[in-house]
Amino acid sequence: MDSASGLPTLAVIGATGAVGAVMLDLLSTRRDMYGEIRLVGSDRSAGRILRVRGRSVEAVPLTREVFDGVDIAAFAVPTPVAAEWAPVAAARGAVVVDGSPAFRSGPGVPLVVPEVNPERVRERPRGIVAGPGCTTLSMIVALGALHRRYGLRELVAASYQAASSAGRSGTDTLYAQLEKVGGDRALGNRAGDIRGVVGELGPFPAPLAMNVVPWTGTPAPGGWTSDEIAVRNETRKVLGLPNLKVSATCVRVPVVTAHSVAVHAVFEERTNQREAQEILARSPGVVLCDNPETHEFPTPSDVVGTDPTWAGRVRRSLDDPRALDLFLCGDNLRKGAALNTAQIAELVAAEQTG
Amino acid sequence: MDSASGLPTLAVIGATGAVGAVMLDLLSTRRDMYGEIRLVGSDRSAGRILRVRGRSVEAVPLTREVFDGVDIAAFAVPTPVAAEWAPVAAARGAVVVDGSPAFRSGPGVPLVVPEVNPERVRERPRGIVAGPGCTTLSMIVALGALHRRYGLRELVAASYQAASSAGRSGTDTLYAQLEKVGGDRALGNRAGDIRGVVGELGPFPAPLAMNVVPWTGTPAPGGWTSDEIAVRNETRKVLGLPNLKVSATCVRVPVVTAHSVAVHAVFEERTNQREAQEILARSPGVVLCDNPETHEFPTPSDVVGTDPTWAGRVRRSLDDPRALDLFLCGDNLRKGAALNTAQIAELVAAEQTG
Repeated sequence: MDSASGLPTLAVIGATGAVGAVMLDLLSTRRDMYGEIRLVGSDRSAGRILRVRGRSVEAVPLTREVFDGVDIAAFAVPTPVAAEWAPVAAARGAVVVDGSPAFRSGPGVPLVVPEVNPERVRERPRGIVAGPGCTTLSMIVALGALHRRYGLRELVAASYQAASSAGRSGTDTLYAQLEKVGGDRALGNRAGDIRGVVGELGPFPAPLAMNVVPWTGTPAPGGWTSDEIAVRNETRKVLGLPNLKVSATCVRVPVVTAHSVAVHAVFEERTNQREAQEILARSPGVVLCDNPETHEFPTPSDVVGTDPTWAGRVRRSLDDPRALDLFLCGDNLRKGAALNTAQIAELVAAEQTG
Repeated sequence: MDSASGLPTLAVIGATGAVGAVMLDLLSTRRDMYGEIRLVGSDRSAGRILRVRGRSVEAVPLTREVFDGVDIAAFAVPTPVAAEWAPVAAARGAVVVDGSPAFRSGPGVPLVVPEVNPERVRERPRGIVAGPGCTTLSMIVALGALHRRYGLRELVAASYQAASSAGRSGTDTLYAQLEKVGGDRALGNRAGDIRGVVGELGPFPAPLAMNVVPWTGTPAPGGWTSDEIAVRNETRKVLGLPNLKVSATCVRVPVVTAHSVAVHAVFEERTNQREAQEILARSPGVVLCDNPETHEFPTPSDVVGTDPTWAGRVRRSLDDPRALDLFLCGDNLRKGAALNTAQIAELVAAEQTG
């Protein structure tokens, strides 16, 4: 605890990365719940001066000592770094909030989305709280709201995932490919001609400009991808439904930032289009944007940079009164990463401040 | 019947349009089953010289007399033109093959996909045979093959539709927007910034470059689009399953040509991943492209300009042994329009030739 303010000391691990930058922005604009904020960068970026809460703070390198006196350690780092250092931080007394996949499926580690299961944040025997991945986070707040009313039984999801969730090389690759294709009218009409001009594929297994790529993540058994399995496991864990039926298909689209998901959700109870829209409209963290006749539905380019999950195209399935179809969009770097971590850290800070 | 050859006379209505151009290409490369081929253009394009089967043919304007002596009239025209002129052609004795929505749902008009229900082509009391729309056609050949083995019971589909199915203005709009966004790295990170630079939206209700738009077609009751309703009605009619459960979400993506669909299909029988892959691999009109570990899955840029439906990402659902998830791609101007019409015309020609 920061002795001057009586408020918790926060360390941001990965403050110099892409998600870290969004985290500093959030810390500067959301309610200030912290005393000291320590910024930890990679060895390469240590010493860089960053801005947070209107002040300049120097990024320090990651060492064991950096966690001394830290109450909350928010991790926005690659999986191997989190796997190694989160237990170090927890052993030194900090509550770790990790946005990486390192601990998501682990026993004794709650998987928390503050709008859905905030109560789980207190059950952390290992001192670590995890948040789900960006694909799950782009739909779970809206799904959780509908689940509370109707009881979710089955989920079929097809994603439209942005390049930036593949890191800076994902974003750089998409921009470079778009620059090469420009508006070249010779392209897009013959098999393989995009492949011939886009240049480097970067982290993607096929050209992304003027294309869609039905693969994100790494190979998992049965022909699934790690992302598709993660959507299933994370949705089950966050909603507390260990037997929920889930089928996801994860597809990358040539969008810089903001994931979208087409959702078919089957519930225990009969649904109603108007009521479902009202539930979404009044749910914290969700914005209803659903009047197609006046072209109101969420698109990535309209929701990028915003905090909520945007919900639209809400329809009751024509052949099953217990099923709803809807389209969801959310910023994969904000609610999909930094914002969810910041929200969990705030729950812990409120608890510590008492 | 063409008196010199003893082969049917074919008229192509709409020969000067985008789908007509693909039709002429197909007539020049597929087995030649016709005597005379008459090319009919719009009033504006009549007189233009077109190439078909290696010969130059002048497009003539659409009149009642153009159908004199025509055995098969293939229509590749907008819906109102088909609605007015198909009955004229049929009354003068031609078998009409219509690719537009004008007659798809009509009683007494078979809806035919030659790989799936060729036998239906003979049941045409009104002298008109219709083909389904491009979204249905991008999945129905593969679905039909799996249905024959397992018995389809339920379909959930999310589409990734190309700009060219919105006509030439769709293609022109996407190219123009891509030219404006180029590889501009300032774009795609703030809400609305794409909207500020792409210029004309053309036939789309939101920017398409660097975006996805969850709306294709016109408003239908219950928040559905006409395209989503069409997928349901057409799939039911082609497969002869009037009570099939169908939920579709139609989404436009910044791809010039080739539609993709993420499919979740529930069957009567238990499914098997390997067997489903084999069924698809040996089905006429389908190519299996399914080895993700070596980056083999269908993408629009790899299948554009080809005839088959490409199937990949075949997975048995983890929570339902009767369900399969897969990803399908097909050229919306070829199998999705001109090719299906040409194939139906060939069935009729074979019947007439005896």
